[in-house]
Amino acid sequence: MNLTRRDFTRLGALGLAARFAHGLNAQTTAPKTRYAVIGLGRIASHFLPAAGSTTNSQITGLVSGHRDKADRIAAQYNVPAGSIYNYENFDEIAKNPNIDAVYVALPNSMHAEYTIRAAKAGKHVLCEKPMSTTVAEAKAMIAACKAANVKLMIAYRCHYEPTNLRAVKLIRDGALGQVQAIESSFGFNIKAGEWRINKKLAGGGPLYDVGIYSLNACRYLTGEEPAQIAAFASTIDHDGRFDEVEENVSWTMKFPSGIVASCATTYGANMAGYYKVYGSKGWLQVDQAFVYEGLRLRAEYQGTKLDELNPARDPSHFVAEAEHFSHCVQNGLEPQSPGEEGLRDMGYITEIYKSAGIKI
Amino acid sequence: MNLTRRDFTRLGALGLAARFAHGLNAQTTAPKTRYAVIGLGRIASHFLPAAGSTTNSQITGLVSGHRDKADRIAAQYNVPAGSIYNYENFDEIAKNPNIDAVYVALPNSMHAEYTIRAAKAGKHVLCEKPMSTTVAEAKAMIAACKAANVKLMIAYRCHYEPTNLRAVKLIRDGALGQVQAIESSFGFNIKAGEWRINKKLAGGGPLYDVGIYSLNACRYLTGEEPAQIAAFASTIDHDGRFDEVEENVSWTMKFPSGIVASCATTYGANMAGYYKVYGSKGWLQVDQAFVYEGLRLRAEYQGTKLDELNPARDPSHFVAEAEHFSHCVQNGLEPQSPGEEGLRDMGYITEIYKSAGIKI
Repeated sequence: MNLTRRDFTRLGALGLAARFAHGLNAQTTAPKTRYAVIGLGRIASHFLPAAGSTTNSQITGLVSGHRDKADRIAAQYNVPAGSIYNYENFDEIAKNPNIDAVYVALPNSMHAEYTIRAAKAGKHVLCEKPMSTTVAEAKAMIAACKAANVKLMIAYRCHYEPTNLRAVKLIRDGALGQVQAIESSFGFNIKAGEWRINKKLAGGGPLYDVGIYSLNACRYLTGEEPAQIAAFASTIDHDGRFDEVEENVSWTMKFPSGIVASCATTYGANMAGYYKVYGSKGWLQVDQAFVYEGLRLRAEYQGTKLDELNPARDPSHFVAEAEHFSHCVQNGLEPQSPGEEGLRDMGYITEIYKSAGIKI
Repeated sequence: MNLTRRDFTRLGALGLAARFAHGLNAQTTAPKTRYAVIGLGRIASHFLPAAGSTTNSQITGLVSGHRDKADRIAAQYNVPAGSIYNYENFDEIAKNPNIDAVYVALPNSMHAEYTIRAAKAGKHVLCEKPMSTTVAEAKAMIAACKAANVKLMIAYRCHYEPTNLRAVKLIRDGALGQVQAIESSFGFNIKAGEWRINKKLAGGGPLYDVGIYSLNACRYLTGEEPAQIAAFASTIDHDGRFDEVEENVSWTMKFPSGIVASCATTYGANMAGYYKVYGSKGWLQVDQAFVYEGLRLRAEYQGTKLDELNPARDPSHFVAEAEHFSHCVQNGLEPQSPGEEGLRDMGYITEIYKSAGIKI
């Protein structure tokens, strides 16, 4: 598929630019944006190999509290010993000319601190979702990146993932007619001991971690911001896992156009993660919508029937998001999912918890 | 499958008795409960042939404002001319010894009047859902049937339908572990001119007509009554169809155990009607859960994977419900879905509308 710059700008407005970014970048001799990965946990293990598969990104630094682990990964990605930091000496990264940006892959409660410290060190920031644990933190992160004149992008993978982008495009193109309602859920049965159920580290329960995908999806699918939100939360299993955070949240939203959304998230059951969009002329459903592979789009509208299994494999979503952020960094462009996008979700998460009677 | 009376009583407590009622009844020489069908519209066209397929039910009367239509149907079902009534002379049905019961298949707003008039005429009443348009009407219907010592059953087909009953049994048997969350929706794109969008006849919009299936399903799937309800309603299409009733409703419910439910209904899009139940040990989904055929149960739990397409065809659901009500009438038993069941839904519907800011 050949796209002109003009096409790219138009697609960019629909959030579709990233899908084609690879092809465009290939036409130029893109330099590499050089990343230090902060936090070497599960999510980093997807980003690390992904960066190497991009045309424009590279891993050149690591930040970890576990030196042995960092050394092992450094060897794998050719990161020099001098570019391995820990949480005490992290600020010295400012003096490292071989690091342009950081990827913040820490527990939620540490996102704000390390985004702000990285910004102060003059590094661009790609920060995992949820952006922060409070609205105030999110605002401080945006301000810090603005003050330091560095880019801030929240790692909303689905904004750069082809099946999700195709769903958005079908809706915007009017395939479904007038959208009336959306259903979405995402959750999993959490194991005891995970940092995700430690309120100090996670900020809250499944809504922060996985419910945010459904919340964000309702926003990119409609292209609207929720006008009203009502929610319930509960804990059923008193087995020690939910002493600090809730187990279940269900919520409904009404958008300015009148579109209504019904959502749920849980840490007490496996919810594969999906959405279904109902319009006056048909419906569209994406299963496995928020996970790393196996995404399946089905739709029926105006005589068309689709059933498309995305053959892409992990970590291709991470490739697309790294590619996009590096492209923005190199060309002085605003990322499609900037800090403001994360801030909005933090505001809605706060509203959902408030409606459910949960203090965050 | 052979069931003892004791098994039957135990299943009855789970609402499963109807599933096996046919087999039990076959062991006796059941007499026929003789029905007059009130209202010869779409829903009656399913019930009429169904009654003839039961072991214990028969059509012996018709009530209609259109004599020519009634005559045509009377010829088909061997109903004598003297057992055809209209809405003026309906009360004369009291003097007809060949009619034991009525099936109320009228627009919602007429359910209360004809249930009460039938009860006063000494006839048992099988009344379509929604039971009424207000809680007050529902209470008056229950009181009238009690005073006349006749049975009252609300025609919740799904309470007597094998796939729905199988879903309930799997949940009660613990296949899914602890249920955490339920999603359900049902709706369709309504045509202009239908009585369903006339508030005086319908009482309200899609919630009364089809949303009630999701509401009721959440109750029979959990075996609990919702403790809290929050809802939104909207009208997007200002094309004349929704001048009197809402187009969309989304709502969430919290049950006493902590189970949360997310539901939606619409008259602006086709929603095939389904529910998905998420438990700590697996999930269960029924597609086409509320329609007359094509029901499909899928589940994954504890190493088991199910995908069962119910081969039953319309009007088998109506056969099962007629069979059950006739059995109750003949044996002095309380139906599994008595007036009180319909009254409860009327109460929750009232709460949903109130939460959504809609006056009913």
